[in-house]
Amino acid sequence: MNEIMKLAIDKARETMNKNYGGPFGSAIINQNSEIIVVTSNSVLKDNDPTAHAEVNAIREACKKLNTNDLNGYILYATGYPCPMCLSAIIWANIKKVYFGCLPEDAEKIGFRDDFIYRFINDKCSDKNVLDILQIDREECIKLFDEYKNSGKIIY
Amino acid sequence: MNEIMKLAIDKARETMNKNYGGPFGSAIINQNSEIIVVTSNSVLKDNDPTAHAEVNAIREACKKLNTNDLNGYILYATGYPCPMCLSAIIWANIKKVYFGCLPEDAEKIGFRDDFIYRFINDKCSDKNVLDILQIDREECIKLFDEYKNSGKIIY
Repeated sequence: MNEIMKLAIDKARETMNKNYGGPFGSAIINQNSEIIVVTSNSVLKDNDPTAHAEVNAIREACKKLNTNDLNGYILYATGYPCPMCLSAIIWANIKKVYFGCLPEDAEKIGFRDDFIYRFINDKCSDKNVLDILQIDREECIKLFDEYKNSGKIIY
Repeated sequence: MNEIMKLAIDKARETMNKNYGGPFGSAIINQNSEIIVVTSNSVLKDNDPTAHAEVNAIREACKKLNTNDLNGYILYATGYPCPMCLSAIIWANIKKVYFGCLPEDAEKIGFRDDFIYRFINDKCSDKNVLDILQIDREECIKLFDEYKNSGKIIY
């Protein structure tokens, strides 16, 4: 077994047995294969629905490295990242991910990763999942334009 | 203008002008229209690529309410939630969202919300965006099965 994946699995096993959250571990390494962080899901422990292993890994690595840009770093995850984690990985500019289980494997043990992928692939149109309504676009565009015209950083 | 959206816009304007992050604000209210939190993007301030307004709102509301379940609460956002935030909303069991700008409006001011939606809708197949490789599925499935067989909480 890959030694980084083993660290992610071991961390997930340890914390799921403490009831911190699901069986999900993650790790981030740099291009020299040095380990930056090894994390796991802590949704239940932290009362934070966003505290998936990969999000925790990105947050911790960014804190440790004092940056919001993980370009060049590589992420490992015991499961295929859910759309939240996948997007977090892209926002963090990570370009390479190694994963173990598939979204359908997570579904088989009761998690909604694949359900959310299906909702997005169906153009977020199922109002029984989430009812998304538009209001006040003009005022919000005004805000967006203020940002653009100020020449601020795009990340 | 909707008064909750106004709070989200005002908060976003305040923090973008402090260079905390992009022009994105959010708010969560309960079913009695009481305001729980008003937040904004703090990616740059916190060096956290996951610190979008909606993720910050969910994390703060969960902390305040001491739960990971926001079922029945309503979220407002100045922009259509990116896939990370949209998924976080679903993980938090929020069922209703009001948003202002569209993903293409965010794209026009330089953000990648719509780019990530296109990547997901293209089945995450563009290796120039993210190279996602599978390893060690068997060992990870073993971990997942341990979780399932332990009868632990599914959230």
